Amino acid sequence: MKKKAIVAYSGGLDTSYCVVNLTREEGWEIHTVIVNSGGFSAEELKAIEKRAYELGSTKHEVIDITERYYHDCLRYLLFGNVLKNDTYPLSVSAERMFQALAIAEYARQEQADYIVHGSTGAGNDQVRFDVAFAVIAPEVEIITPIRDQKLSRQQEIEYLQSQGFEMSWEKAKYSINRGIWGTSVGGVETLTSRQALPESAYPTQLSQTEPSQLEINFEHGEPVALNGEKMGAVALIQQLNELGGAYAIGRDTHVGDTILGIKGRVGFEAPAALLLIKAHHLLEKHTLSRWQQLHKEPVATWYGTLLHEAQYLDPVMRDFEAFLVSSQARVSGTVFVELRPYHFELLGIESKYDMMQSKVATYGEENNAWDSRDARGFIKIFGNQLKIHASLE
Amino acid sequence: MKKKAIVAYSGGLDTSYCVVNLTREEGWEIHTVIVNSGGFSAEELKAIEKRAYELGSTKHEVIDITERYYHDCLRYLLFGNVLKNDTYPLSVSAERMFQALAIAEYARQEQADYIVHGSTGAGNDQVRFDVAFAVIAPEVEIITPIRDQKLSRQQEIEYLQSQGFEMSWEKAKYSINRGIWGTSVGGVETLTSRQALPESAYPTQLSQTEPSQLEINFEHGEPVALNGEKMGAVALIQQLNELGGAYAIGRDTHVGDTILGIKGRVGFEAPAALLLIKAHHLLEKHTLSRWQQLHKEPVATWYGTLLHEAQYLDPVMRDFEAFLVSSQARVSGTVFVELRPYHFELLGIESKYDMMQSKVATYGEENNAWDSRDARGFIKIFGNQLKIHASLE
Amino acid sequence: MKKKAIVAYSGGLDTSYCVVNLTREEGWEIHTVIVNSGGFSAEELKAIEKRAYELGSTKHEVIDITERYYHDCLRYLLFGNVLKNDTYPLSVSAERMFQALAIAEYARQEQADYIVHGSTGAGNDQVRFDVAFAVIAPEVEIITPIRDQKLSRQQEIEYLQSQGFEMSWEKAKYSINRGIWGTSVGGVETLTSRQALPESAYPTQLSQTEPSQLEINFEHGEPVALNGEKMGAVALIQQLNELGGAYAIGRDTHVGDTILGIKGRVGFEAPAALLLIKAHHLLEKHTLSRWQQLHKEPVATWYGTLLHEAQYLDPVMRDFEAFLVSSQARVSGTVFVELRPYHFELLGIESKYDMMQSKVATYGEENNAWDSRDARGFIKIFGNQLKIHASLE
Amino acid sequence: MKKKAIVAYSGGLDTSYCVVNLTREEGWEIHTVIVNSGGFSAEELKAIEKRAYELGSTKHEVIDITERYYHDCLRYLLFGNVLKNDTYPLSVSAERMFQALAIAEYARQEQADYIVHGSTGAGNDQVRFDVAFAVIAPEVEIITPIRDQKLSRQQEIEYLQSQGFEMSWEKAKYSINRGIWGTSVGGVETLTSRQALPESAYPTQLSQTEPSQLEINFEHGEPVALNGEKMGAVALIQQLNELGGAYAIGRDTHVGDTILGIKGRVGFEAPAALLLIKAHHLLEKHTLSRWQQLHKEPVATWYGTLLHEAQYLDPVMRDFEAFLVSSQARVSGTVFVELRPYHFELLGIESKYDMMQSKVATYGEENNAWDSRDARGFIKIFGNQLKIHASLE
Repeated sequence: MKKKAIVAYSGGLDTSYCVVNLTREEGWEIHTVIVNSGGFSAEELKAIEKRAYELGSTKHEVIDITERYYHDCLRYLLFGNVLKNDTYPLSVSAERMFQALAIAEYARQEQADYIVHGSTGAGNDQVRFDVAFAVIAPEVEIITPIRDQKLSRQQEIEYLQSQGFEMSWEKAKYSINRGIWGTSVGGVETLTSRQALPESAYPTQLSQTEPSQLEINFEHGEPVALNGEKMGAVALIQQLNELGGAYAIGRDTHVGDTILGIKGRVGFEAPAALLLIKAHHLLEKHTLSRWQQLHKEPVATWYGTLLHEAQYLDPVMRDFEAFLVSSQARVSGTVFVELRPYHFELLGIESKYDMMQSKVATYGEENNAWDSRDARGFIKIFGNQLKIHASLE
Repeated sequence: MKKKAIVAYSGGLDTSYCVVNLTREEGWEIHTVIVNSGGFSAEELKAIEKRAYELGSTKHEVIDITERYYHDCLRYLLFGNVLKNDTYPLSVSAERMFQALAIAEYARQEQADYIVHGSTGAGNDQVRFDVAFAVIAPEVEIITPIRDQKLSRQQEIEYLQSQGFEMSWEKAKYSINRGIWGTSVGGVETLTSRQALPESAYPTQLSQTEPSQLEINFEHGEPVALNGEKMGAVALIQQLNELGGAYAIGRDTHVGDTILGIKGRVGFEAPAALLLIKAHHLLEKHTLSRWQQLHKEPVATWYGTLLHEAQYLDPVMRDFEAFLVSSQARVSGTVFVELRPYHFELLGIESKYDMMQSKVATYGEENNAWDSRDARGFIKIFGNQLKIHASLE
Repeated sequence: MKKKAIVAYSGGLDTSYCVVNLTREEGWEIHTVIVNSGGFSAEELKAIEKRAYELGSTKHEVIDITERYYHDCLRYLLFGNVLKNDTYPLSVSAERMFQALAIAEYARQEQADYIVHGSTGAGNDQVRFDVAFAVIAPEVEIITPIRDQKLSRQQEIEYLQSQGFEMSWEKAKYSINRGIWGTSVGGVETLTSRQALPESAYPTQLSQTEPSQLEINFEHGEPVALNGEKMGAVALIQQLNELGGAYAIGRDTHVGDTILGIKGRVGFEAPAALLLIKAHHLLEKHTLSRWQQLHKEPVATWYGTLLHEAQYLDPVMRDFEAFLVSSQARVSGTVFVELRPYHFELLGIESKYDMMQSKVATYGEENNAWDSRDARGFIKIFGNQLKIHASLE
Repeated sequence: MKKKAIVAYSGGLDTSYCVVNLTREEGWEIHTVIVNSGGFSAEELKAIEKRAYELGSTKHEVIDITERYYHDCLRYLLFGNVLKNDTYPLSVSAERMFQALAIAEYARQEQADYIVHGSTGAGNDQVRFDVAFAVIAPEVEIITPIRDQKLSRQQEIEYLQSQGFEMSWEKAKYSINRGIWGTSVGGVETLTSRQALPESAYPTQLSQTEPSQLEINFEHGEPVALNGEKMGAVALIQQLNELGGAYAIGRDTHVGDTILGIKGRVGFEAPAALLLIKAHHLLEKHTLSRWQQLHKEPVATWYGTLLHEAQYLDPVMRDFEAFLVSSQARVSGTVFVELRPYHFELLGIESKYDMMQSKVATYGEENNAWDSRDARGFIKIFGNQLKIHASLE
């Protein structure tokens, strides 16, 4: 009986090589699986399927995880206002992890003998794939021809041609990874430390120059309506990507540490992620206590860091998620945003939990909550330890 | 013998009231002291001095602490990339603390009987003043007429008029606190949660629309040259405020918790602070280890929080500073920035300590540092605990 | 109509003075309320009730919160292995907060005009009482005769005698606060930094000298059985206090910072708390991931610190609790302990979630999980950043 | 020319095998190097040297790093009160790292071709050795015959016998690693989760049963005198090990995570480390501010964790050290300890920096630092945010 191999298929050169090579050289039955987490259009998926069958796939499967990806991951990133290194919404890192999990579950269910991925030995993705596969489907062997054979693009193309596949594999000038939480852009500039991506490298170009205003409604930290219209979070994110993208909002360059200990640099555009995170964060400033804000920060930093570093399955992630969910109990209300070319301004918020507008005490007004004698007493005792410390010098 | 009182004088209505009231009603000898931490021009200082003597000051003193303020405070805020609540460079909070310290030291040296400040009982500044005075000059009594008497502006003006001072005390539409690390802007909008400051409220208006580029040179985390010209940090900050201000860069609204437990909101413009912090942070991403970046974050958050909350004199602040100085050993190099209206882009960096450009291993290139077999072994062991954990389900 | 006042009554001199003074001088209707969180026996409660009525209480109420106190507080302290300053299980701090909450709820339900507590102005308890009352029952006025009138014990006794109460108010040599989570002991030695409490100061004396063994069974972090016998957590704690107390286990001296900024010192004996925390912690070392252990630590430290500092009602405490509950998913199993005079030894554990005994890989054995080539690859890549860093020197 | 190999030699079976095997099979010139960090006596060193030459070493070198080890590592562990998982003073982890560094420096200076260590592929030590060697001496190749050849003890013994070495290699019942900061004890029991080491497994046996008292004097966090006698820290630690060992103090079992992701268990005795850490910690409670204590904790936890995990060379460790040194500015004074069989009691401290004994305010006494009105004002404002939060429910 033929061995069954699941290929985490993307439609690109590397995984196409895997399909042909393993079918022809190993004689395996290949299932190509593509996991959609919101980055593929119906047309793209169709084209990828067509190619998969042309290359020899026995069965091509599209697994849509967008809702699950939002529910099990993106909303926590939003609760935590997670921007890796204060910049990057983890657009690709998060998505890759969830793609890997879906593939692993599929492989297990199909009782596959092998799982194949096309990662090289240089980057983070191989770690995310290998770890997810080994944890979820430990009985399935992991096969990585690109990593192991260290083939160049040219060698792969020549092999495919030798097998009768005369497709065009022209390399795009910029390597683009499109996702619902952001699109990464790599190119010759991002291999340097010095050069910025040119405007033209970004897939979405500025098309709006007149400012416009947005209202985003949150309930318990999750976005539930845009400009007064209720909608699911996934639809809302997609709509925000379009609205913000037209203003070229949410572009930046991420410089960070890979799991392998080296540093990398990548450009990205993530209009919805940036708009939602900043709007959400402002709402939190009005509705969370000082202690919540101080203690959410390390939780969110580590949640993002461990997610980035392929540790999503560590139980500490569930503990962080429990903390984050709890913290959102009152993060409900509306945030008003103005979009402008290349940037946006948070105008303000409305919330019934707004601690700045309580009747107990209000900033900048005469206060009935305490008088000058209270303030004097407060400060006297507040400074006790500093005074004791200074007295012993 | 007359009692001697030091008034922390600003030239405004509240402290003018104090000078007149305490001279006339209490018969005290008043020294008016103004502390310049970079926010006053020579003309302003002259005008303030003139008014102080008119109101009855026996001795008017200008204490310039700008260099000390940079050395003992701002550079640590820069080392820590400190933006309170991810937004506010602590422009006023930091400055007020250092003004209070200088006044306290002056009062002690002058063997004053009283120190007078014009804070109300509602805000943070009273805490900063009271704490600094009580710690540095515990033998001097603190006098706070505005806080204790709860006078309205109108009552203060009427009192001054009754004493023959017919100055104009017209209230500006926006309350502006100018400082080297940023200028705060309060107004009717910032008392709400919903309204943004109008463009016109900002003291510095957009005057440049053509993009231009900057080079900022850092040594051990401190800015040492601008566009190739070496200069002291204070001069560099002032020049950056002008360059960035012309692009209306560094504006935002801060929403935060006061020391008294209520929430407040304030606009600000801080072009130099924002440009330096973001440029410095980028340089750190290239030159610090992953562990340094992860562990600097809480140190910086708490340094900013405790500085904001009048705890500058707590010895833990010295411990944080020691950490931060140590962390800057290799934060040297040049950062390239492009200024544009209302925003800026970090283009890239150059540094001999750039860990992204090492010979040992480089991202996105063929690596000689390890091979695919190493990567496979790494990931296998890297995932050990997750696999063990999953196996016990 | 008479004003109604709720007195947080302890049976001691201070609150007895309050009952008599407020009945006679103010003409108020007094409800004496005592909150039992496991520290009082039935006899003690009866004696206190009798005295309350003698002194003029209109209604005496005993509120038993022991189960609630365990459920809403002690189990989180156990989940977090909370020992303040690595020593003190927060025996009194935690209890006082929960007593205050129960009193506040009672006052609100009774529509009282006043809540009276007997704290002085020097310590932490006034903060716990005042804060709980102001948050839970903001419409009720807080009355604190002892704090306000600064009476000496002698003056209180003389007043009571003048009112016909010739009770004996002899002061014990040591001030004892008995609670289910530990008993505090203050005396002349604890006012110094140098002297230790004498053996005789501890309420429970050594009575067992032969070692004996214990088995404590945990489910999801909560103790559920002792020596194989299932029982509720409260009963288990009480039994452990007896078993451990006989060995004089769990004694120590706590040195810590009060909410008012000064330092204090107090002795305590807390056999059950120490035995449970250490046994629970050992079980966690076997069943939690490395990341869980690292990230539980600050959560637990801050949970204890904020509880100690009267911040139990801050919403961040609910967030910490959510984290802690989540972390206990697998903290189930049996811990074996040997009790000896003045100390105990943790012998070992058994748990189906013991990650040390998994089939995937075992310490100290030949491993099939990886081979030497994997280890070499792992370490090579593990050291990447250090090598890059060193190469740039 | 012969290749030159440096063997990290311990005198045990594994490294003896390496010496013979590499001399005879590879024809290399072997330098045996043993690094003493306080765990070896002069007699032991002499015996090891003798054996090294017998086995074929060309040059045997003893490098004593005890003082450096204390200065560059142990004092920071003391400043941080570092007990891994609240138990283990990192006795072996720390030492192994410093032995590796010394070997690497020696190899570099000798321009060796190879460094040889005898670690297996299962534990932490291989990581410490490999990382230190690769960072300090990247040009030298690392050779690990035991790891690579997966030989059993019996095979090694047979090989040695075949080469004419008829030494006795009887395996001790317990594997003992002796060091100045503690001695680890592994045996059949520590491979289980359930069994405790028997009393007889510990190298040091109880010999004192009568309590006795100690005085330890600290300056800036470092121990400088014992019972009034000034001495160097290394001598003091060694003397404390003897004094405490006689009482069987400082024994425990560590359960922890290895760098390779599995859990391990090991017994240890570390009288000096435990006595010094606990005494030092008590002194800190009296002399550090609340904020220092709160913020030292994560610094110390991570310092210990990264040291344990072979990250000593990461620059963040220097940042932590700077923090820790700064924090010790006032940690000076005397700690009084009573030793008893199997445990000890911290009696108290004396320090001119004792914040509990300041004139400004003292716990438990009438305070002149504030009055009841101040306390009331303090608490009112202290509770502001909780009141605002509750009012919005």
